[in-house]
Amino acid sequence: MDIGFIGIGEMGTAMAANILKAGHQVRVWNRSPERAQRLVDAGAQVVGSVAEAFTGDAVFSMLADDAAVREVIDAPLLEQAPRGQIHVNMATISVTLAEELAHAHAQRGLNYVAAPVMGRPDAAAAGKLTIVAAGPAEAIDRVQPVFDAIGQKTWRIGSLAQQANVMKLATNFLIGSAVESLGEAAAMLAGHGVAMQDFLDVITSGLFQGVVYQGYGKMIAEQRYEPALFKARLGMKDVRLALAAAESVMTPMPVASVVRDSLLDAIAHGDGDKDFAVLGQVAARRAGR
Amino acid sequence: MDIGFIGIGEMGTAMAANILKAGHQVRVWNRSPERAQRLVDAGAQVVGSVAEAFTGDAVFSMLADDAAVREVIDAPLLEQAPRGQIHVNMATISVTLAEELAHAHAQRGLNYVAAPVMGRPDAAAAGKLTIVAAGPAEAIDRVQPVFDAIGQKTWRIGSLAQQANVMKLATNFLIGSAVESLGEAAAMLAGHGVAMQDFLDVITSGLFQGVVYQGYGKMIAEQRYEPALFKARLGMKDVRLALAAAESVMTPMPVASVVRDSLLDAIAHGDGDKDFAVLGQVAARRAGR
Amino acid sequence: MDIGFIGIGEMGTAMAANILKAGHQVRVWNRSPERAQRLVDAGAQVVGSVAEAFTGDAVFSMLADDAAVREVIDAPLLEQAPRGQIHVNMATISVTLAEELAHAHAQRGLNYVAAPVMGRPDAAAAGKLTIVAAGPAEAIDRVQPVFDAIGQKTWRIGSLAQQANVMKLATNFLIGSAVESLGEAAAMLAGHGVAMQDFLDVITSGLFQGVVYQGYGKMIAEQRYEPALFKARLGMKDVRLALAAAESVMTPMPVASVVRDSLLDAIAHGDGDKDFAVLGQVAARRAGR
Amino acid sequence: MDIGFIGIGEMGTAMAANILKAGHQVRVWNRSPERAQRLVDAGAQVVGSVAEAFTGDAVFSMLADDAAVREVIDAPLLEQAPRGQIHVNMATISVTLAEELAHAHAQRGLNYVAAPVMGRPDAAAAGKLTIVAAGPAEAIDRVQPVFDAIGQKTWRIGSLAQQANVMKLATNFLIGSAVESLGEAAAMLAGHGVAMQDFLDVITSGLFQGVVYQGYGKMIAEQRYEPALFKARLGMKDVRLALAAAESVMTPMPVASVVRDSLLDAIAHGDGDKDFAVLGQVAARRAGR
Repeated sequence: MDIGFIGIGEMGTAMAANILKAGHQVRVWNRSPERAQRLVDAGAQVVGSVAEAFTGDAVFSMLADDAAVREVIDAPLLEQAPRGQIHVNMATISVTLAEELAHAHAQRGLNYVAAPVMGRPDAAAAGKLTIVAAGPAEAIDRVQPVFDAIGQKTWRIGSLAQQANVMKLATNFLIGSAVESLGEAAAMLAGHGVAMQDFLDVITSGLFQGVVYQGYGKMIAEQRYEPALFKARLGMKDVRLALAAAESVMTPMPVASVVRDSLLDAIAHGDGDKDFAVLGQVAARRAGR
Repeated sequence: MDIGFIGIGEMGTAMAANILKAGHQVRVWNRSPERAQRLVDAGAQVVGSVAEAFTGDAVFSMLADDAAVREVIDAPLLEQAPRGQIHVNMATISVTLAEELAHAHAQRGLNYVAAPVMGRPDAAAAGKLTIVAAGPAEAIDRVQPVFDAIGQKTWRIGSLAQQANVMKLATNFLIGSAVESLGEAAAMLAGHGVAMQDFLDVITSGLFQGVVYQGYGKMIAEQRYEPALFKARLGMKDVRLALAAAESVMTPMPVASVVRDSLLDAIAHGDGDKDFAVLGQVAARRAGR
Repeated sequence: MDIGFIGIGEMGTAMAANILKAGHQVRVWNRSPERAQRLVDAGAQVVGSVAEAFTGDAVFSMLADDAAVREVIDAPLLEQAPRGQIHVNMATISVTLAEELAHAHAQRGLNYVAAPVMGRPDAAAAGKLTIVAAGPAEAIDRVQPVFDAIGQKTWRIGSLAQQANVMKLATNFLIGSAVESLGEAAAMLAGHGVAMQDFLDVITSGLFQGVVYQGYGKMIAEQRYEPALFKARLGMKDVRLALAAAESVMTPMPVASVVRDSLLDAIAHGDGDKDFAVLGQVAARRAGR
Repeated sequence: MDIGFIGIGEMGTAMAANILKAGHQVRVWNRSPERAQRLVDAGAQVVGSVAEAFTGDAVFSMLADDAAVREVIDAPLLEQAPRGQIHVNMATISVTLAEELAHAHAQRGLNYVAAPVMGRPDAAAAGKLTIVAAGPAEAIDRVQPVFDAIGQKTWRIGSLAQQANVMKLATNFLIGSAVESLGEAAAMLAGHGVAMQDFLDVITSGLFQGVVYQGYGKMIAEQRYEPALFKARLGMKDVRLALAAAESVMTPMPVASVVRDSLLDAIAHGDGDKDFAVLGQVAARRAGR
């Protein structure tokens, strides 16, 4: 397939590389085109404008946040896009923006698919991301081969694009809640002289299997928050989006508020670029440890 | 081995039955001796006083809470107990009481082992409990065959009995946090028209494997909180104990406070005997759903 | 003085009326000009464009929220405004917008004064508002006679306009906290059969004098939340702005998060147009009462 | 009148001195009788047993907490007390204990009056305490002259003694909430460069009059938490009792939970003997200041 790709940060680069590897053509646009060298070496073509990327069988975008998306995917771009064009937005953005984009695309006869991904850069590099896709069914059918190049599993949620974003935000909220709770548990255990690693051995071999409790738990047990696999600053962005998505449907989420406050505490102490697991340090600090 | 067993509620009965099945002798004491019929049919002997149960190779107790333990395991009982007697307390009790009991037993030359179990009645019936044991190493060695009859795995934590209780409370706090968070996520998803079951399919096949997210998540998705596998009222007891254990070492646990408040809300609405998962209903109610 | 006045909702109308009564000339602009009749009868002149209001000795604006301000006070308006023009913004807006506006005015040689007011419509009608003003000292000096017509007291905070907004948001946060806490106390007292009115008599005659505890406390005691003196929906706007202001300087405010969640609960139950005191009903509902 | 007085800490001594000054006879008992010297100099008689104090027209007790009350006011004491004896308990104790005591006294034909006081030691010394009394009306009538010697105002709540304790705990919860909120506001204001003292000037001259906002606000503004007028450790005791009183009637109090967590944070950092206002320091620490 002929694929446009917009936004090649760490995640985007890994994803585009896998699309190339699967035999598709990729036209890349990035604000800083020099970042594209690795992809060019792998066969990608760099284009000079977003509009040139916004063509072909489908265009994928992987931009940092709402602000970046708003700046790049603007009304003039959509106006000039070829009718029927499929745009797959894989970024974690707000539900509000997802709704706006779905509407703006539909108005102009374009297909908008929200397909946020789950997984860290190493999963992206291995083509092992989990993809949560929502939008027009036929459009998703057509890009499925690309999803197969990027991820190990695509979940199809429904026809309303923003629902994929809601699901992504709910997932990241659960991660945040688990990390905060592990931090609080570790602080209590430390107060009683129990080793966090012993506790982790017990829970992760039974009730709490899965990478979240194992991965973040280990970092908290070792009090080792660098290098960051997922930065506290990004966790803050996600919990903010989750709280906004909940507020828009008048849903209190008190645990999300706690996670937000702990992340603010971490960032206020200069730890925004440390791993999300640094919530363990915040919990320990509250206990004077 | 010759085992005394004190307290045969649902969990205790299942455990004592497995001890019998493994070929040990069991002397049972219960406040309501008529509850023992099933165990008698399986070969147990009913004794008329706690003291008669508090003999043999070891005595196991599985009483409801601090109050029940204080009433049954009192100073006169310990005074008359044979020196060197091993007492394995499998109940979920407060850290404070565990410390007191460890001290009281040691003073009188008795061995006190704290061995709270993880798992619901069905796991107890199947002999698949997880046991977290702490106390004198030699004593634990001697009762290990009994643990093997009750559980599938024994974790040995250390020599301070109360540390096993701390670990149990930390585990149950993590469960409470996960249930509350699933409830909050479900309420937000419902507001956006996303099916909780779809969300569960995604997360439990990836990031959040394990029985907690699967089991409680399913009940929340189905809004089916009866019959209770683990009652909200018992969850309240456990979070209260966790908060007390944390307070004793000056550790704030804001998520535990949120779980506590939601459980109070549930119980205030008459749902104390429904499953812990009823926190999903509390979260939905807060959102006017 | 020759005063422009933009935005004549309930508060704005009362303020403009008092400016007229003090002998100043007032040119009024409002999106719905028909609302101006009462002021015209009192001697005001209605103008057809914001630009016509944005002249004279000073222009005052009292718009609903950030969105309304952004729509009306835009770059073209500021471009064409006479150099040295004083603009006094009395609305409760975000700290971020206040900073932007201060910057945008200064860049064009205009004077921007932030002067949010404290007090409900009845205080506005009586000219008894409290004004918190920040911005260029000389500009505040010049509009002080107008402040004197509107309020009983002007507090001058400093030269950075947004600091007046921060102070206003901190004040409203304290109100929200007091209302939430009164609600929680009332729910607990009710559980023990103690009359809230008796409690109020005790505290408001001693430790908690002042209108906040008396006024909101009375509404909670009487469970009478209509007519609203200050709507829950507006309280929600203010707590949202306070949390944003705090987030911008990385400050966790857990009580503000609690107030936010309770307000969401109220609005979710259809009580957004009831008085802020309806938090008392939320607290009672949580307790199953 | 002939008054027994049990417990002469700082508050008790001040109260007993005022009773003497009003012309009553006072028989004093204290665990450490040497503390009574000042009262002996003022005319009090020291007795060697609690029972000797528990006679006369009425006996007043002012003990530290539940544990101290349980130790001193035990069943044998009540058994031997003269029928019809009036016991006025002025301590801040749990609602549960108050209920128990009311019952235990009534069973033995004794009159139990709960009369917790509001005010710090300086108010006690000046005879300016506020008294909240509940219990048998006739008994309260008879001790009213003593209340008049101790306080400036007696509020009579009802016939159920524990209701006076509930009211006291609700009051102290409101104080805790106000202090925590002032701390959070101060942290936010500091982040924006606004002086807390300026803010206090505004709010305490208008919306938030009364000693709580003025007194604690000033300590937070000056970041001066010693000497303590009311220790954080005592605030912790009171919020714990308030949460327990609320839990007994299934009432969530999320703001009380926040205050509890902040107090734990303070005590964990070694500030338990500083003033309650040290919550301001906790809020600043969370913000990295």
